[in-house]
Amino acid sequence: MSVLTPQHAGYDAEQVTATVERRRELLDRALRAIRERTFFSAFPESPSPRVYGDNAADAGRQAFETLLHRRFELGQPATAAWVATERSPWGPDLGVAYPVPDVDALLAAQTAAVPAWRAAGPVARAALCVEMLVRINAASFELANAVMHTSGQAFVMAFQAGGPHAQDRALEAVAYAYEEQARYPAEAVWEKPQGKRAPIRMAKTFTVVPRGIDLVIGCNTFPTWNSYPGLFAGLATGNAVLVKPHPRAVLPLAITVRIVREVLAEHGFDPNLVCLAAEPRQDQGGGRLAAELALRPEVGIVDYTGSTSFGDWLEANARQARVFTEKAGVNPVLLDSTDDYRGMLSNLAFSLVLYSGQMCTTPQNLFVPREGIDTDAGHVSVEQLGKDLGTAVDGVLGEDAKAAELLGAVVNDDVLARLEAAPGLGSVVVPSRPVQAPAYPDARIRTPTVVGVEAGDEQVYGSECFGPVAFLVTTDSTAQSVQLVRRTVGGRGAITASVYSTDPAVLDAVRDAALDVGVALSENLTEGVYVNQSAAFSDFHATGANAAANASLTDGHFVAGRFTVVQSRRHLPAEPPASPSAGA
Amino acid sequence: MSVLTPQHAGYDAEQVTATVERRRELLDRALRAIRERTFFSAFPESPSPRVYGDNAADAGRQAFETLLHRRFELGQPATAAWVATERSPWGPDLGVAYPVPDVDALLAAQTAAVPAWRAAGPVARAALCVEMLVRINAASFELANAVMHTSGQAFVMAFQAGGPHAQDRALEAVAYAYEEQARYPAEAVWEKPQGKRAPIRMAKTFTVVPRGIDLVIGCNTFPTWNSYPGLFAGLATGNAVLVKPHPRAVLPLAITVRIVREVLAEHGFDPNLVCLAAEPRQDQGGGRLAAELALRPEVGIVDYTGSTSFGDWLEANARQARVFTEKAGVNPVLLDSTDDYRGMLSNLAFSLVLYSGQMCTTPQNLFVPREGIDTDAGHVSVEQLGKDLGTAVDGVLGEDAKAAELLGAVVNDDVLARLEAAPGLGSVVVPSRPVQAPAYPDARIRTPTVVGVEAGDEQVYGSECFGPVAFLVTTDSTAQSVQLVRRTVGGRGAITASVYSTDPAVLDAVRDAALDVGVALSENLTEGVYVNQSAAFSDFHATGANAAANASLTDGHFVAGRFTVVQSRRHLPAEPPASPSAGA
Repeated sequence: MSVLTPQHAGYDAEQVTATVERRRELLDRALRAIRERTFFSAFPESPSPRVYGDNAADAGRQAFETLLHRRFELGQPATAAWVATERSPWGPDLGVAYPVPDVDALLAAQTAAVPAWRAAGPVARAALCVEMLVRINAASFELANAVMHTSGQAFVMAFQAGGPHAQDRALEAVAYAYEEQARYPAEAVWEKPQGKRAPIRMAKTFTVVPRGIDLVIGCNTFPTWNSYPGLFAGLATGNAVLVKPHPRAVLPLAITVRIVREVLAEHGFDPNLVCLAAEPRQDQGGGRLAAELALRPEVGIVDYTGSTSFGDWLEANARQARVFTEKAGVNPVLLDSTDDYRGMLSNLAFSLVLYSGQMCTTPQNLFVPREGIDTDAGHVSVEQLGKDLGTAVDGVLGEDAKAAELLGAVVNDDVLARLEAAPGLGSVVVPSRPVQAPAYPDARIRTPTVVGVEAGDEQVYGSECFGPVAFLVTTDSTAQSVQLVRRTVGGRGAITASVYSTDPAVLDAVRDAALDVGVALSENLTEGVYVNQSAAFSDFHATGANAAANASLTDGHFVAGRFTVVQSRRHLPAEPPASPSAGA
Repeated sequence: MSVLTPQHAGYDAEQVTATVERRRELLDRALRAIRERTFFSAFPESPSPRVYGDNAADAGRQAFETLLHRRFELGQPATAAWVATERSPWGPDLGVAYPVPDVDALLAAQTAAVPAWRAAGPVARAALCVEMLVRINAASFELANAVMHTSGQAFVMAFQAGGPHAQDRALEAVAYAYEEQARYPAEAVWEKPQGKRAPIRMAKTFTVVPRGIDLVIGCNTFPTWNSYPGLFAGLATGNAVLVKPHPRAVLPLAITVRIVREVLAEHGFDPNLVCLAAEPRQDQGGGRLAAELALRPEVGIVDYTGSTSFGDWLEANARQARVFTEKAGVNPVLLDSTDDYRGMLSNLAFSLVLYSGQMCTTPQNLFVPREGIDTDAGHVSVEQLGKDLGTAVDGVLGEDAKAAELLGAVVNDDVLARLEAAPGLGSVVVPSRPVQAPAYPDARIRTPTVVGVEAGDEQVYGSECFGPVAFLVTTDSTAQSVQLVRRTVGGRGAITASVYSTDPAVLDAVRDAALDVGVALSENLTEGVYVNQSAAFSDFHATGANAAANASLTDGHFVAGRFTVVQSRRHLPAEPPASPSAGA
C-alpha cells in the first residue's frame, strides 16, 4: 500500500449507527450518574430468576461446563501454543486451554486493527462498549461460574462482584472515557479579529488519537471487576486491548474477550482489536509474559492489579506507557467509641468474613485504645472487644454450609501459608478454623483470624498480610491511633479506612488524616453497607494518592491519559460580506 | 497541636467571596472557550497605548529598571543565600539578586500553607487564580521588559508571548483545572433500593485533595509562557507551587510570584503557598537545585520545560510525582506543491526568522523532493527553492533595525555555537549573518541559516538543532518525505508539523502520518498565521503522544492528575415516611 493511500480499514457504518441509537440512552444515563454519584446501577445485582429469567442459572452453568476440558477458541491469529493453567479453589481442574501468543505477530495484528477504531470516533466506541456490556450482562451466570471456580468466591458473590458490579464499573469507565473525549470539539472555526481588516479565519480539526495497545493484566481474586475498568476505558478511548489474565483466573476474561470480539466483528471491525494472551503458571515455567508485553513499544497503556513489587516494577520500567496500578495496602479501622456496639461488631465481622478477607478493601488493622472504648453497652475493654468480635464472627458465619457461602475458598497456597503463620505474629484473639462445604469436599475454606498486637509491633501490622488475617492493635490512645493511621497509610497505602466514634472531634481528626493520606473513609458503618464494598457510579475505588494505587477506579485521571488530541489547521477564506438583500 | 484538632489555617472568607463574584464571569467565559476552542483571548495582545493606557509602557519600563541591581524581596522564609545570575542577551547585566532556599525549611513552610488552600475549594481557587492573572496582565509592560532582557526576545514579542499570550494560556489551564474538579459533586446522598424494605441511605462527601507541592521548572527562552500553565494548573487544583526558574531567566517569574503572593496575602492565605527558588548558574557552581527538589517527597507534581536529557531524567526518577515535560523535537515541513509560492515562502521565512528560530515550535527540517515542486509560479527546483527562501528571509528581515525586532538576540552561547557549526553539516543554502541593533550594540543577533542535506543524512537532521538552523532535506519523492516525517517525529518527537501541497491525497497521507505520530499539523499556511504560533484556548501545544513532550498545554490530562478525590461516607437514617397530611 502506498504511503499516500489513507489506511482506514472499514467498518459497518450502518450497523454502528443502529447500535449508537439503541445504546445512547444507557450511555446518557451513565453520564448523568458520574456527575451525580448518587445511586445508579445499570445491571441488576440479584441472581433471581425474576430478574434474569427462570432458565438463566441453569443455562449459565451448562455454558460454563461446556467450556471445560477443551480449547477455548477465540479465532485469534498468532497463537504459538495452548496452555491450561486453572484449578478451581473449590476442587476440580478446569482443563481449559488458552492461546499463548507469538508476541510479535499478535501485537502487529492488534496494531493493524486500531485505525478503523480510531476513525469510528468517541460516540461509536462508547455505544459499542455499552453493547458489549449488555451482552456480557446476559452471560452473567456463565461468568459467575467462571469467576467462582477461578477466584474461589462463593457463587452469589461471584455473580454479583464478577458480573453486574463489574459491568457497572465498566460502564462507569466508559462514561468517563466518553465524557473525557467529548470535552473537545471535533472541529472549530477560529476567527481572529484584525481591527478594520477582515478577520483571519482558520478551520481546525481535533482528532482523538489512542496511545496504541492497552495491556490489561488481571488478578486472581477479581478477574473481571478489577480488569474491566481499564479494559473498557482503553477500548472506549480508541486503543486496542490485550488482556493478559492471571494464569489461575483466565476463564472469566476469556469469556469476556469472546463477547467483545463478537460485537466488534458484527459491526465490521477487526476483532483482533481485543485479544487474550495466556501463559503457563510460574510452576509450569511461565510468569514472564506480562513483563515482556509491558515493555513493548506497541503498548501505550498498562492496567494492572496485583502485588506491590510487580506494580512498582511496571511503574519504573514501562516508561513508554501510561501505567495504572492497584497494589497492596494496609486498611485501618479506628475504634474509638460507638452508640451501636452490636451493629459495629456485626458489620466489622462481616467485613472480615466476606471472601475470607481476600479483598483489597478488607480491613487489616483494628486500632483500639488500651483503655478500651465507650459503647451503648457500657465501657468495653480491649480483651472483651476481641471476645465479642469472635462471637460476632461466629454469628455472621453460622453453620458450615452458610459459612462457606460467605467465606468462599482460599484462593491459593500463599494465602493459606500466611494464615497458618499468623498465630506466631501475636496473641490469637479470634482463631481461624476450617469449614466444610458439602458440595465441594476438596475446597480449602477457612474462617478469619484476628491477632492481637501492640502499637509498637509495626513490623508486623505495618505491611499487607493479604487474606483472612486481621490485627487488633492496642494503642496508647485514640490520638495515637490517628497517628498510626496516618503513618501506616501514608507509608504503605490503603484502599479503605474506617472509623467508629461518637466524638465529632475524633471524626474530624480522622477525616483530616484520611484527606492527608488520601484514603476513602467509612464512618460508623453499622448497617447493611460494609467498608469493603465500593459501589460503581458513587464510590471511588482507591485514590492514587497513597502507595496502594497510582490511580482511582474510575475518574477523569483514569481516562484522560489514554488518548491525546491531535489537531490540524488550515486557512479559510474570509467570510463573504453579507448580501445587502439578505435581510429583505 | 493535638492530632485531634483540625488543622485548617484561616483565610478571609469575605474577601474570597467578593473575588469569586468579581471574577466568575471571566472564569465562565474561559470555560466556554475550552469547550468551543474557537477564538478567545482575555488579555489584549496589543501593547498599544489605546489598550493599556498612555502611561503604561513608560511605567512598566520604570518598574523594571527599579528592580535592577538590588535584591528582589519577596518576603519568603527560609532563604539561605542570595544570588544574581542574569545578563541580558541584549547586553547589560541585570544584577538582580534572588533567594536561594534552605530547602527543608522552605518546603515545610509551603506544606503548611496547603490545608487552608485545599479547604477553600475549587471555585475560590479558580477565582483567585483569575484575580492573579488580571493583576499580572496589568504588569505586562514590566514583564515584557523582564522577558526581553532574559530571553533575548525583541520587545513586542516579549510583550505578547511573555505577557497576554502567557496569561491567556494560564487562564486556559485554570479553566481546565476548575472544570476537572467540577466534574465531581462535593456531596451526594446515595440511596439504594431494597425492594419492599426502606432503602439504604448514605451521605457521601467528595473532597478534592492536592498532591502537595508543584515544582515548576522554567526555561530560558519562554520563562512565563511555558511555566504559567503548570503553575496555575497546580495552584488551581489546590497544590502549593515552588517556582524554580532558569538561572538566566528569573526576573519574569519573580515578578509573577510577587503578584501571586500579594493576591494570596490579601485574601488571608499564607503567601508561602507560592515561592521562588533561585540557584547559581552552572558556571557559578549551581545547576543541581531542580534535581534535588524534584526528588523530595513533598513534591507531588513536576512541570518542566527544557532539554530532553533532563526531562527524561525527571520522568525516570521523580517517581513520587506526576511529571509533565516539554522537551525537544524535530519539527518537519513537507514541501510538495503550492498554489501560492510567494505566500508559502514568506510564511516559511517568517517562521524561521521569528526569535531566531529559538522556539520549540520553529520548523527544523524542510523535506523537498529531488525533482522539485509544482507551484503557481511554475515548477521550482530544489536549488531555486533554496535561493527563493533566502530572498524571502531577506524580504522578511528588511533593514537591521527592523530585523532585530523580529530576530531578537541569541539567548546563550550554546545556541551561538550550534549556529556557527552549522555550515559544516551540509551545503549552506541560506547563510546566517550578524545584525546590529542600534540601541543594543552588545546584543548578539543572527539571521537564520538553512543548510542543504540529503535524505540519507539523518544523523544530521534527525535530532534537534535548537536555534536559527534549519535543514533543507532533499528526498527521493514526496512519499519518502512522508516516511521521513513519520520516522523522525516518531523517533525524536515534534511539537509542530507543516505541509504544503495542492494534492488532496498528499494532504490525507500527511494528516494520517500526523495522527499516527501525534503531532499538530498546519496545512498550507501562506497568510498571517505561522506554524510556530499556538493560540491559547484553540491550539493544543504539544500532544504528549511523541517524544517532544509527555503532555499537552492544556487539556484534561494536563490537569486531571494534579489532585485526587477522597471520599468519606456515613449512614443516613431512613427517610421519614411522608406525612399523611403533607399533601392536604
